[in-house]
Amino acid sequence: MTIAHIAQEAGVSVPTVSKVLNGRSGVSDQTRARVEELIERHGYRKAPPKSNNILELVFHELAGMQAVDVIRGVEQVARKHRFGVVISESGLREATALDDMLERRPRAVLAVGRLSEAERDQLKTRGIPFVLLDPAAEQPDEVPFVGATDWRGGQMAVRHLIGLGHRRIAVITSQTDDSPGRARLAGFHSAMQAADLAVDPALVVGAALTREGGHGAAAGLLAAAVRPSAIFTSSDLQAMGVYRAAREAGLRIPEDLSVVGFDDLPVGAWVDPPLTTVHRPLAEMAAAAAEMALILGRGEEPGQLGLEMATTLTVRDSTAPPRTGN
Amino acid sequence: MTIAHIAQEAGVSVPTVSKVLNGRSGVSDQTRARVEELIERHGYRKAPPKSNNILELVFHELAGMQAVDVIRGVEQVARKHRFGVVISESGLREATALDDMLERRPRAVLAVGRLSEAERDQLKTRGIPFVLLDPAAEQPDEVPFVGATDWRGGQMAVRHLIGLGHRRIAVITSQTDDSPGRARLAGFHSAMQAADLAVDPALVVGAALTREGGHGAAAGLLAAAVRPSAIFTSSDLQAMGVYRAAREAGLRIPEDLSVVGFDDLPVGAWVDPPLTTVHRPLAEMAAAAAEMALILGRGEEPGQLGLEMATTLTVRDSTAPPRTGN
Repeated sequence: MTIAHIAQEAGVSVPTVSKVLNGRSGVSDQTRARVEELIERHGYRKAPPKSNNILELVFHELAGMQAVDVIRGVEQVARKHRFGVVISESGLREATALDDMLERRPRAVLAVGRLSEAERDQLKTRGIPFVLLDPAAEQPDEVPFVGATDWRGGQMAVRHLIGLGHRRIAVITSQTDDSPGRARLAGFHSAMQAADLAVDPALVVGAALTREGGHGAAAGLLAAAVRPSAIFTSSDLQAMGVYRAAREAGLRIPEDLSVVGFDDLPVGAWVDPPLTTVHRPLAEMAAAAAEMALILGRGEEPGQLGLEMATTLTVRDSTAPPRTGN
Repeated sequence: MTIAHIAQEAGVSVPTVSKVLNGRSGVSDQTRARVEELIERHGYRKAPPKSNNILELVFHELAGMQAVDVIRGVEQVARKHRFGVVISESGLREATALDDMLERRPRAVLAVGRLSEAERDQLKTRGIPFVLLDPAAEQPDEVPFVGATDWRGGQMAVRHLIGLGHRRIAVITSQTDDSPGRARLAGFHSAMQAADLAVDPALVVGAALTREGGHGAAAGLLAAAVRPSAIFTSSDLQAMGVYRAAREAGLRIPEDLSVVGFDDLPVGAWVDPPLTTVHRPLAEMAAAAAEMALILGRGEEPGQLGLEMATTLTVRDSTAPPRTGN
């Protein structure tokens, strides 16, 4: 209920309702009682302070080759709606940066990766709606988000390897308890289970989602007495590390070892052999999250408050049937 | 001269000066004459409309793996100065986007790559200072810019190849008449000339600054009766195309062919063999350009209105002495 609604229903003027709300004199007892009763019955929220046509895009860490996909996706949607995109790296964590952001009076906040409970509370108190893009951790149900179908992506990758005839399939998973990493690993297990293949615990290795992480994990896997014939990694960077470990071990990809990545970074198409990987539609995810944030910023309800966009498998030359006996 | 200065010097109040400026009554003829004389003598400029703590970062094309380096460099400087960075892809070319930008009343504009004369005029008329980062074309002398020492970079790369013993050195240059590309090519010629090496015109090939461009140009160079023993490219992406052409021709890098890139993208460290390339300090260039824009935005003069930051050579494994007889 706005002041105008209450005034209309009470049959009084807007200034009169305002006087009652602010406890000022100049209103008859009878009118005051009627207005207060309406407020009690319908509730009343102050109109939010005028906000600017600004969408805040907050990164936890502004790095990686996919950040520009996110920015481009958000900027194109914002421009269409005639919004400016203010970008920041630690907007909500530093007190002064948060003050500066509030001073800009953005219509909505789009956070990439994470948004702590304290940050969410800060935004709620100020009436600034937010959307989380590509959440790294599980969130309470009421947090609007746009992610990717990571579980399906993991399943898809491992099904592809099983379809080629691989049985000894290793997985390099993420070391931290991030939600996409766990979903990808769960997809691996689901695909193995559906094919009645036992998972050798020695073939499930945690590593950082970097080239170095993938290199170290793969070096260990490839030095074992019985090597895996295929490795499913949780990121293309890890896959680059597997390439290096394979070269060092004198193994050829895909003849001696099949490799599947995750993300579909441009680099995957350039390496030798070009990498088979799971594509995450990050620019499209960013655009959808921006649309959602702008809808919330207008005070409307988006059709969906949570959304996972489909991953797809990009098959290139790093996967092939295993050698006989492997 | 501000209104306050004029008022002080004339020994009258600010409202009185304002009345004279606006041609209103209520001022004695004598006072009016004194104020008008001072304005004529010292000049007077209206105070600019209040601007926001916003720095506009305008990309011509928001793509490529280095855009995020630019954004990070700018954002870190802006945050230190408690400025928000609004990012846009075609901010100045579309009329509505330009209107929206002006509405945000930014303190300064930082344009990446290019800024047309019409765009510069638009900004000048509005009193919004601008800086050009990594200019793709030559600019009038009064345009503040931050670039890289592309000529020195080209020279450095080719000197490195000559030092290894190469004589038949090819260059894949950019197809368009962009200024960094011409500087890199000029650096190639300078290094060749300094070593008294003749340049075979057949070994100077123009191509797009992409992997495909490098691939096509290198395929032609490697199919010739007498091959070059080294190729200097104008971008790391072109170098990735040379890698592919070498693989297709059955040539090993660096045993059969040395390759030097330009840019120092992360991908160069991941490919096999890791790429020798010219490093451009893009994040540092972006930070310097942001500092310059904010100084101009405060109405101050930066120490320098044009700046090229030093390129350096990152030597990895794609360069080696040529085979005997090559």
